[in-house]
Amino acid sequence: MERDIYSNLSPLDARYYKSNKQLLDEISAYLSEKSVIRYEAVVEAAIITVMERYGIIPKGSSEKMKKACREIDPEAVYREEEITRHNIRALVQVLQRSVGEKLAPYIHLTATSEDITGTAAALRMRDVFFRVVLPRAAEFMDVILAIAQREADTVQIGRTHGQHAVPITVGYLFAGYADRFGGRVIKIIDAVRELKGKLSGAVGAYNAQSLIFDDPRRFEEEVLSELRLSPASFSSQIIEPEYTLDLIHAVVSAFGVLAQIADDIRNLQRTEIGELGERFEKGQVGSSTMPHKRNPWNFEHVKSMWKEFTPRMLTRYYDQISEHQRDLTNSASGRFTVEIVTGFTLAVDRLTSQCKKLVVDTERLNNNLEMTKGMFLAEPLYILLALQGVSDAHQVVKELTLRAEKQGKSLFEILEKEKISQEMIRTEAWGKLLDNPSFYTGKAGERALEISRLWKSRVEEIRKECADYRDSLL
Amino acid sequence: MERDIYSNLSPLDARYYKSNKQLLDEISAYLSEKSVIRYEAVVEAAIITVMERYGIIPKGSSEKMKKACREIDPEAVYREEEITRHNIRALVQVLQRSVGEKLAPYIHLTATSEDITGTAAALRMRDVFFRVVLPRAAEFMDVILAIAQREADTVQIGRTHGQHAVPITVGYLFAGYADRFGGRVIKIIDAVRELKGKLSGAVGAYNAQSLIFDDPRRFEEEVLSELRLSPASFSSQIIEPEYTLDLIHAVVSAFGVLAQIADDIRNLQRTEIGELGERFEKGQVGSSTMPHKRNPWNFEHVKSMWKEFTPRMLTRYYDQISEHQRDLTNSASGRFTVEIVTGFTLAVDRLTSQCKKLVVDTERLNNNLEMTKGMFLAEPLYILLALQGVSDAHQVVKELTLRAEKQGKSLFEILEKEKISQEMIRTEAWGKLLDNPSFYTGKAGERALEISRLWKSRVEEIRKECADYRDSLL
Amino acid sequence: MERDIYSNLSPLDARYYKSNKQLLDEISAYLSEKSVIRYEAVVEAAIITVMERYGIIPKGSSEKMKKACREIDPEAVYREEEITRHNIRALVQVLQRSVGEKLAPYIHLTATSEDITGTAAALRMRDVFFRVVLPRAAEFMDVILAIAQREADTVQIGRTHGQHAVPITVGYLFAGYADRFGGRVIKIIDAVRELKGKLSGAVGAYNAQSLIFDDPRRFEEEVLSELRLSPASFSSQIIEPEYTLDLIHAVVSAFGVLAQIADDIRNLQRTEIGELGERFEKGQVGSSTMPHKRNPWNFEHVKSMWKEFTPRMLTRYYDQISEHQRDLTNSASGRFTVEIVTGFTLAVDRLTSQCKKLVVDTERLNNNLEMTKGMFLAEPLYILLALQGVSDAHQVVKELTLRAEKQGKSLFEILEKEKISQEMIRTEAWGKLLDNPSFYTGKAGERALEISRLWKSRVEEIRKECADYRDSLL
Amino acid sequence: MERDIYSNLSPLDARYYKSNKQLLDEISAYLSEKSVIRYEAVVEAAIITVMERYGIIPKGSSEKMKKACREIDPEAVYREEEITRHNIRALVQVLQRSVGEKLAPYIHLTATSEDITGTAAALRMRDVFFRVVLPRAAEFMDVILAIAQREADTVQIGRTHGQHAVPITVGYLFAGYADRFGGRVIKIIDAVRELKGKLSGAVGAYNAQSLIFDDPRRFEEEVLSELRLSPASFSSQIIEPEYTLDLIHAVVSAFGVLAQIADDIRNLQRTEIGELGERFEKGQVGSSTMPHKRNPWNFEHVKSMWKEFTPRMLTRYYDQISEHQRDLTNSASGRFTVEIVTGFTLAVDRLTSQCKKLVVDTERLNNNLEMTKGMFLAEPLYILLALQGVSDAHQVVKELTLRAEKQGKSLFEILEKEKISQEMIRTEAWGKLLDNPSFYTGKAGERALEISRLWKSRVEEIRKECADYRDSLL
Repeated sequence: MERDIYSNLSPLDARYYKSNKQLLDEISAYLSEKSVIRYEAVVEAAIITVMERYGIIPKGSSEKMKKACREIDPEAVYREEEITRHNIRALVQVLQRSVGEKLAPYIHLTATSEDITGTAAALRMRDVFFRVVLPRAAEFMDVILAIAQREADTVQIGRTHGQHAVPITVGYLFAGYADRFGGRVIKIIDAVRELKGKLSGAVGAYNAQSLIFDDPRRFEEEVLSELRLSPASFSSQIIEPEYTLDLIHAVVSAFGVLAQIADDIRNLQRTEIGELGERFEKGQVGSSTMPHKRNPWNFEHVKSMWKEFTPRMLTRYYDQISEHQRDLTNSASGRFTVEIVTGFTLAVDRLTSQCKKLVVDTERLNNNLEMTKGMFLAEPLYILLALQGVSDAHQVVKELTLRAEKQGKSLFEILEKEKISQEMIRTEAWGKLLDNPSFYTGKAGERALEISRLWKSRVEEIRKECADYRDSLL
Repeated sequence: MERDIYSNLSPLDARYYKSNKQLLDEISAYLSEKSVIRYEAVVEAAIITVMERYGIIPKGSSEKMKKACREIDPEAVYREEEITRHNIRALVQVLQRSVGEKLAPYIHLTATSEDITGTAAALRMRDVFFRVVLPRAAEFMDVILAIAQREADTVQIGRTHGQHAVPITVGYLFAGYADRFGGRVIKIIDAVRELKGKLSGAVGAYNAQSLIFDDPRRFEEEVLSELRLSPASFSSQIIEPEYTLDLIHAVVSAFGVLAQIADDIRNLQRTEIGELGERFEKGQVGSSTMPHKRNPWNFEHVKSMWKEFTPRMLTRYYDQISEHQRDLTNSASGRFTVEIVTGFTLAVDRLTSQCKKLVVDTERLNNNLEMTKGMFLAEPLYILLALQGVSDAHQVVKELTLRAEKQGKSLFEILEKEKISQEMIRTEAWGKLLDNPSFYTGKAGERALEISRLWKSRVEEIRKECADYRDSLL
Repeated sequence: MERDIYSNLSPLDARYYKSNKQLLDEISAYLSEKSVIRYEAVVEAAIITVMERYGIIPKGSSEKMKKACREIDPEAVYREEEITRHNIRALVQVLQRSVGEKLAPYIHLTATSEDITGTAAALRMRDVFFRVVLPRAAEFMDVILAIAQREADTVQIGRTHGQHAVPITVGYLFAGYADRFGGRVIKIIDAVRELKGKLSGAVGAYNAQSLIFDDPRRFEEEVLSELRLSPASFSSQIIEPEYTLDLIHAVVSAFGVLAQIADDIRNLQRTEIGELGERFEKGQVGSSTMPHKRNPWNFEHVKSMWKEFTPRMLTRYYDQISEHQRDLTNSASGRFTVEIVTGFTLAVDRLTSQCKKLVVDTERLNNNLEMTKGMFLAEPLYILLALQGVSDAHQVVKELTLRAEKQGKSLFEILEKEKISQEMIRTEAWGKLLDNPSFYTGKAGERALEISRLWKSRVEEIRKECADYRDSLL
Repeated sequence: MERDIYSNLSPLDARYYKSNKQLLDEISAYLSEKSVIRYEAVVEAAIITVMERYGIIPKGSSEKMKKACREIDPEAVYREEEITRHNIRALVQVLQRSVGEKLAPYIHLTATSEDITGTAAALRMRDVFFRVVLPRAAEFMDVILAIAQREADTVQIGRTHGQHAVPITVGYLFAGYADRFGGRVIKIIDAVRELKGKLSGAVGAYNAQSLIFDDPRRFEEEVLSELRLSPASFSSQIIEPEYTLDLIHAVVSAFGVLAQIADDIRNLQRTEIGELGERFEKGQVGSSTMPHKRNPWNFEHVKSMWKEFTPRMLTRYYDQISEHQRDLTNSASGRFTVEIVTGFTLAVDRLTSQCKKLVVDTERLNNNLEMTKGMFLAEPLYILLALQGVSDAHQVVKELTLRAEKQGKSLFEILEKEKISQEMIRTEAWGKLLDNPSFYTGKAGERALEISRLWKSRVEEIRKECADYRDSLL
């Protein structure tokens, strides 16, 4: 059933599809309605495989079943659902027709719908993360780690409350981003590894399974192991929702780090700051009436996506409640989880391509650094005075800085007239800072490199784990 | 650009599109990407119309422009945007090529992009509400008002805390739903009427417009009046976001009422309660392993949709902040507002069709009413005793009910042995209640009819207002 | 029961109480636990008053009751609740003991608890708004309107995407804030006026009331009219939750405007921008190690409060659902609504006092304006060229600006060499702009004054309405 | 500074304080304003301790400092803050006066405020969890595990969609609650263990520290190790916010499980279901007009608390963004985190005491089980038929159940007339089920015991870890 994308309603299927077709087609293989049916068939096939192993059905059944699953047509399943009004029963009936009357009664036998849909959902999530999302996250890490290393010693004024504080380096800034985002990526992986399946029947007590199997929990384990999953430690009709909840928390909190990065960079592009910039594409227009403008709209876009998707986390918390052995008030809400994953991956990809063309303007960096005429040396001055035993050092320096500000002079000029303090601070450390105030960057450069090295090797491990999940299950 | 709907990512463009194609196609005419471009062209045309009226451009220009607008091809605009990287500049350039070199420079002249997109967004919202959403809401009102009238005197035990309280009627229950939902519909209409446009330029101060017009605010009013809109009382680059915010609040709070209705009905369908039911369709399957089950999944679906969309309100609150004269961190989030409107309309439609086939089971209603053996008469008993001056009436009745409960007897049986109280309550009112306990429904039936009549006439007014916005603007 | 405030857990009862004792004591008179009991007694008294008027109880009863209500001791009610485990029953029993055995049985007669608590909650909200919140909001309006008028012609570069766009004035900026905040204040008033009471009994059908009154709805109206309220158009056990919901929406959206103002001002205080500033108090410390820093922490605080309270709106949406005739899953959540109102009022008050001492730095304003060397004239240049029939005016100007930027020259310098365009733009308008680029502020100054005048008179009306609700109900 | 609790504004400091004084006093020792100052002093003391070890200050300094810290008076610090307008500078000055002029300049030396407040916040959270929250959570686990074991074989109809499905046991239901809640408790512990401190100065680059220490990161480690913490892998002015975020996620998601439990139990108390019940206290009143009612208000309260606190998670996500090296827009919001922890602990405690007096009504359980006249055997019937090779078994059974329903007969009665199917299902398994339909509980009882055993030993480990953090740090 084809449709013009410009008639679609979700931006994800129209404007953003248009803007990043390749990525969204990749995601679609795991998160679209088509993929739902395909993965559900995969789970049904795994049950047949283990039934064959148990000798319940003849050898060769599983091959027949897998073939039927590979060939399944979503359109046909949807047509069937129009009659049955039940999606899994529709799938089962289509598969039954395909495998022939002998095998038919064994398809889905003892399983409840949720055994299939819940397990398939875990599989789809695992695969989309290992095959699409995490490789993208790793690429983003590469890009910001490269900036962290390249700019490890590029001095930049540090800012707290939007006010100049004391200097750091651009590399240190990006090392921090990498450390925070990397930490979240590892949380995501931990959560993906924890995803579980189930095959415990309509209320989770293996009622139906117990009719056939002495040890239905072992049967469950074997089926899930075919899919490289393990069973939930408890299930009712549904898998405990907390596994997915933790994953979405990891995603949403990783999104928060992207938003911080985007927000910082767009602020550093303010006309008055100008320390970072996007390269303009040929033909690009800044504004419909102000052609000269260079708006950081890509970074704004990332923050905007974060604003859209973060509140949706709440729906997932609400979906923790499912009355008694389950109610279905999470049916629609569960389906929209794919939008969060899609939105996040789009944001990662957007930020990656923007950071690749990010320009660091060292002239503006230096101008900004010198803007307060060395005022940031008030901090080391206070510390060096205190080290000499000046008990009200903080107060002394505060007055010096107020005087400097009042007179429009630099802290140095004021200090020169203050003989007493002059003597007290005649230390080597202070001498160095006077020669080169931007030397006051502490361990910024060193730490930028240390953190980068650490994460580079971790990113390699992430890539290895992703590679390990490349093969198809059918 | 065509795409298989089963490859789409949003449930709105796949599963729910499939399940309600007609409704979603109607919505698509106002909320899709295609509609965005069409409505933006409408705004550009209105500017040209008023410029012609002002004599700035030759007579006939507006006709030429309107024709260009009617014929615009979204695909062409998107192609242009790939070069300009600016959606409105792309639209302008496509229109310019279409109208010829003479008129071209006047298109979009003095307007900033947001003058167009902001105004077009208001128009699209207004039209989708008056033409699609509100007519659906009116139909839903019809359905529940009909139930309120039909079942005005069908006695039902009232429930608070999930416990039997005192009786109401089914009609009164539905009259309450109608009153609450109707109140929200009126809030929606109020908010739609308040939607505003703008034509005040890049920072809202009519900088560009002042170069041409002595009274740019009058020009703004004339253009917007072509579109049956009025200007925002203040605008920066953007229209004050509170107009849309109030609309979405009205929608989300109306959604809350739908969720309440759906929740109540699914609870009244519990196996142990069974007062309401859905009619089963032929061929419908209750569960993949439990064929007899009749799950209230449509009502669960409505609640689920509400869970998905309600938290998204927060994004709209966050979008109230747009730094200085505007930042673009609401670009993506603004686009997703269409999902909320779509989700709401789907829920209204689903609930309408379900309520149409809602079955009221009077046998179960009566069984439930009698379940506590008249215990609900404790309330009138207490009041009648108090009216006779028994100062600890509440305490007296409490002890009687505890005794009744302990002995497994009805309140009547206990009362018969209590001579003193017997005498005290020998009133006509009590006699009536003893004869027919379900008579204790207060004004339930009367109020059900009163409220229904009131809303029936209001619904007619709503329909009239909707009809008034039927004509196209081009 | 006294407690050290430093042992309290909520910041509202500890740190923020300490910082604004006067305001929080005022609010406490309406929103504390003490006030809950006091207002509930007020409602019980109104019922007695109307019963006396109806002749059900002897003349003089209502005076006796009012006296009992005025003297009620919250501690005594709480002690009683420890036995009854029911707050309203406890209140009733304390009042009964106080008025004597004759009147006792009539107290609370036919009312359900929610008739009292729901009506009292509406009263408390109404009074806290008219007596505390709205007068504060009016004062804030005064302060920002004064800035809007005073700085109506103080030119400031307009900013979109954090980039310089075209100029506005500081007064126009603040006029916009006033218009948006004022609009929200009016929404708040509308919602307060809409608050409703009820006296319709345990399930809303006037079951109990019908035992005594022929027209129980009229009785309800008379009681509520004593309290200057009217009945909800429908009620179950509870008043329809949408009245309060609309009020909290109005508050939260007003909070959003405060957050925008705070955010803008703190950004305009950035070291690199410095257009606005807070005056430093004597003895104030900027930072524990950087004594010179002047952090806009008060504005950050306002945004922080907004971040804390905005998501709580969702709880109010969830509280729309109350199963059947009511469940109590809104008991706690309902109580926390007072925190939102308190947080909002604190933020209004903080912003008021900060805006009072806000300093506008015209030197920095001018420096920033000149920073892009007239680049913002690209917009009028493009428009004037287009008016002369240059069909690709936008493209032409874009290239000029790129050239200017590349060569580090001002737009004027580049233009001088461009003979053709020189001639085309030799208009009076362009001449004026060349002489004084900051003249390009459109209608900013004029609109700032217009909007201010409008709101000044509206603020007076608000004050009048507040004054109208000053008198006590007991 | 004392205040009447009935004048407080937050329910946590008034109504809920009154209702659970002991618990809230315990929490107050870690989360009140008093505790903030005390813990900040602890961090300042740890710095002095390590400085003494490094030989920067004389031996004995740390003892003097610790004494000053133990004796600190919050009121004095607050008085000082009124002058400095800076809370940490106020604390430092109070401590400086206390230790004498010699040691004074070394207090807080090189630290930025956030080094102290951020580290102290981590400590307070760790201590309140190990000493108050987790011991309570362990007690709750005890209570529900005891129910799981006691009722392992008490048969209950399983419910999906609020409809009867197939049976489980009450013990299995509670085993599931224990497994889910226990899993969340372990998430909480993991997150508490991950909490980090920092001592890296104003922008996180150890600028100030590098003036004194060759290896400032080692100094940081040593100071934090005094407090049994380790440094964040990266810090700017602040510790990466994700550590706390993960903790609050764990808390909020644990709260979700409590809400599920409360919701289920209150539904199982519905008049029509009545499988579970609360024991009534002496003197307790059910309703102000309906004395007989027994409302599950404690369980409703727990859900209500969850509704109040869950949306607040969003504020924590928003607090992930702190511009550049930090802005202060998380100041207020950060302070309110204590309300979430308090609310959660209150809910745990409430549910514990309620579950202790939970009554299981086996008569109602059996009545409900028999309500559908064996209809739940449709599932095993379908499976047994399918195992005999009936390819349309699902369809066959569906028709039988529809017939049964139509004729108002039990499934058994219908089956007796169906000779063909009779023969097909003459299996031992079916025989057993016919004899005792409630036998169809699968592995419910067995799994209930297994899960209980597992968690009992885990709870013991949790208790051990809690005990390990009992000692004071000063």
